[in-house]
Amino acid sequence: MALLYSLKKQVLEANKQLEKYGLVTLTWGNVSGVDRDEGIMVIKPSGVSYSELKIEHMVVMNLKGEVLEGDLNPSSDTKTHLYLYNNFKNIGGITHTHSSWATSFAQAKLPIMALGTTHADNFRGEIPCTRILTNEEILGNYEKETGKVIVETFNNINENEVPGVLVANHGPFTWGKDAYQSVENSKVLETIAEMAYRTYVLNGNIKGVNNVLIDKHYLRKHGKNSTYGQKDDKF
Amino acid sequence: MALLYSLKKQVLEANKQLEKYGLVTLTWGNVSGVDRDEGIMVIKPSGVSYSELKIEHMVVMNLKGEVLEGDLNPSSDTKTHLYLYNNFKNIGGITHTHSSWATSFAQAKLPIMALGTTHADNFRGEIPCTRILTNEEILGNYEKETGKVIVETFNNINENEVPGVLVANHGPFTWGKDAYQSVENSKVLETIAEMAYRTYVLNGNIKGVNNVLIDKHYLRKHGKNSTYGQKDDKF
Amino acid sequence: MALLYSLKKQVLEANKQLEKYGLVTLTWGNVSGVDRDEGIMVIKPSGVSYSELKIEHMVVMNLKGEVLEGDLNPSSDTKTHLYLYNNFKNIGGITHTHSSWATSFAQAKLPIMALGTTHADNFRGEIPCTRILTNEEILGNYEKETGKVIVETFNNINENEVPGVLVANHGPFTWGKDAYQSVENSKVLETIAEMAYRTYVLNGNIKGVNNVLIDKHYLRKHGKNSTYGQKDDKF
Amino acid sequence: MALLYSLKKQVLEANKQLEKYGLVTLTWGNVSGVDRDEGIMVIKPSGVSYSELKIEHMVVMNLKGEVLEGDLNPSSDTKTHLYLYNNFKNIGGITHTHSSWATSFAQAKLPIMALGTTHADNFRGEIPCTRILTNEEILGNYEKETGKVIVETFNNINENEVPGVLVANHGPFTWGKDAYQSVENSKVLETIAEMAYRTYVLNGNIKGVNNVLIDKHYLRKHGKNSTYGQKDDKF
Repeated sequence: MALLYSLKKQVLEANKQLEKYGLVTLTWGNVSGVDRDEGIMVIKPSGVSYSELKIEHMVVMNLKGEVLEGDLNPSSDTKTHLYLYNNFKNIGGITHTHSSWATSFAQAKLPIMALGTTHADNFRGEIPCTRILTNEEILGNYEKETGKVIVETFNNINENEVPGVLVANHGPFTWGKDAYQSVENSKVLETIAEMAYRTYVLNGNIKGVNNVLIDKHYLRKHGKNSTYGQKDDKF
Repeated sequence: MALLYSLKKQVLEANKQLEKYGLVTLTWGNVSGVDRDEGIMVIKPSGVSYSELKIEHMVVMNLKGEVLEGDLNPSSDTKTHLYLYNNFKNIGGITHTHSSWATSFAQAKLPIMALGTTHADNFRGEIPCTRILTNEEILGNYEKETGKVIVETFNNINENEVPGVLVANHGPFTWGKDAYQSVENSKVLETIAEMAYRTYVLNGNIKGVNNVLIDKHYLRKHGKNSTYGQKDDKF
Repeated sequence: MALLYSLKKQVLEANKQLEKYGLVTLTWGNVSGVDRDEGIMVIKPSGVSYSELKIEHMVVMNLKGEVLEGDLNPSSDTKTHLYLYNNFKNIGGITHTHSSWATSFAQAKLPIMALGTTHADNFRGEIPCTRILTNEEILGNYEKETGKVIVETFNNINENEVPGVLVANHGPFTWGKDAYQSVENSKVLETIAEMAYRTYVLNGNIKGVNNVLIDKHYLRKHGKNSTYGQKDDKF
Repeated sequence: MALLYSLKKQVLEANKQLEKYGLVTLTWGNVSGVDRDEGIMVIKPSGVSYSELKIEHMVVMNLKGEVLEGDLNPSSDTKTHLYLYNNFKNIGGITHTHSSWATSFAQAKLPIMALGTTHADNFRGEIPCTRILTNEEILGNYEKETGKVIVETFNNINENEVPGVLVANHGPFTWGKDAYQSVENSKVLETIAEMAYRTYVLNGNIKGVNNVLIDKHYLRKHGKNSTYGQKDDKF
């Protein structure tokens, strides 16, 4: 019970961070979080503004998609979140937005190459863009198919090291160990996309940086022997 | 009487939202609202700043353009608003701005293609750009002619499903069921224009998404069987 | 005496508006105002931040450039202001900034064509860019030469109808009937430049709008028979 | 003791300015300051947010890199700061960020040409971009090698007159007489980069301004006979 309250509170606050970080227009974005031990997911209700959002609005579901608690309709992207939790076994939070720079790449159907250390500090390689959904997929179980095409895109990519994707013609999904980290990765992705756009305009022949630099920065911050930041007991 | 007060209050607040949403510079934008049963329109006075705007400044007119109430001159775009209300029978509010991204498309005389789901969630297809007015139209009843060229542009487009337009060399007009919704559509149009610009720069050969995806998203949010948001009695 | 206080107060407030309007970085901008009857100019001191600026810091000079009041050094651009007041006989205020969009055009050495009604509402035609100063002019009385090249640029342009210019390799100067209006025109110029940049990117073959549209909008707002805004006794 | 407190306070406040000036996302930036007489450097701890940063978090080191005071890990870029202090003998403060415009140039591996007076007021010539580090340098003492490639880049450039650099594939470093000035130069560099980008887009054939104009502006503000700003005893 206390754990559920804590998860609902985190998902509430993570949703409100979307506005603070400038990642959303109107109500276009949603964050969820999961408790793997209990097998439950908490997600934003559909179409509610971030400033009005309260803890009692949060929708609680199991990972089959059955509502356990909450009077409001869950986010229209709920089935995409569920599919990702059921297939990416280590992730604890998911964020979806239509943030301006990342969505522009998604609409252009271009991946975001690793063009510098800002990228490599956070994503170990290119951020992929999915293929376009077929008409059958769109007319079928659309939101679940969106999850499937994301998972398909990560066939040869480790989702724990590249915690985000561009869905073609749509926008970005990011994830992390919990709801907060999924929002932070959404902010990082947006910032990287903005700089990648300007780098392309300045230098049309640009190529991605090499793996030696990517690994140096990624592992400096995320590897077992990372030196970035503070040990938890100090700060 | 209470209804008129309520309409004036809505138009006042909707005008103030223009500044909050970052859609206006100085006094360059105006919102109106209509009461179809009473046959009256309320509109912003000309050249008054949004922060100084008070309910008693609102100008009340009938749909022939005769002032019923108010000491101030109405917006210089009043005849365009009137022409639209008299020809688009279902709309209840109109917003005109010179917002930066949408006006750039209007100046470039380019429509905004549907490049992704953000667009399709709100506009069921391309947002058109009018033809240029002839010199005779400019030298004649200019503001009314602006309304006429908008209506002409929607000969083969349903204005209830594409609630906005770019007037060539000028800027955007949007509309909705009431004044608030017309402002919201103005914000949506500006956001879509910004992403469309960047998509074009990233991918010069981009084409619009297909109708299957447009309809899926538009009808998910606006159709009779829409699943987006909450039933009114719940939130 | 009261008149001088009032002028100093206006110039103080107009300088502070530069920051509010987002036209300045650090201390890179200055506003002056003139009292034609008294033959005096008030201008910002050099290098003082806008938040620290107080009325007693204002520098008072005659139009020959002799300091009448004030302990601080006047803006380093003072001689440019003086030259403009001595040659553009109707202007009462001048603003100089390094605002980002207008300065980008000045660095590209491109005028800003009239691309739409936003431009035509405020500037009756293209906003010119000066020629580059010669080495002799730079090594000579540089700030005065800057004023001279501006006046030269307006040989065939009416400075009362086109209240601003881009100085090549430098940035914008704008003017108006008083200090406030010169700042407002600086904001307008920056906004127009931003939209012109985007219009050029969207449509590389764009041409300026015709004079019929320019005159319609300019005279609607500024001519003797203008219909924009309110009569002074009403608002 | 009082001197050390004063240096720690300055470095603390300078780090907080990074956020106020819009130069940082999340915790991506760090400022240090040095006391040449005492031979000590104060630097931001790694991965701590600017709003949480307190004076007791500051890390104090000697110029060999030995920690003298502070429980937290210093910035991961510490060895770059140390190398610069040990080789650029006149500088008293260093700022490193991933600010958006400057980093875009670093990713494009392009220097920033002097395109106007805004640049020349602050940097006496082009802002260089380093060569790319070799794999050996990346796999070796990476952060120190970053310092070395910066110093190498300034073989024929006076670091006191061009107080900043773009590290290829990474981002900007700037410096100054103290921590505050290094942050101010970081803000200037970001602003110049933004305008240079737009100038390039508007005019693909643009060339830098000539040295006569650069020297006029640089020396007007920085030379022995500078006329910009106020004498210290007046303001």
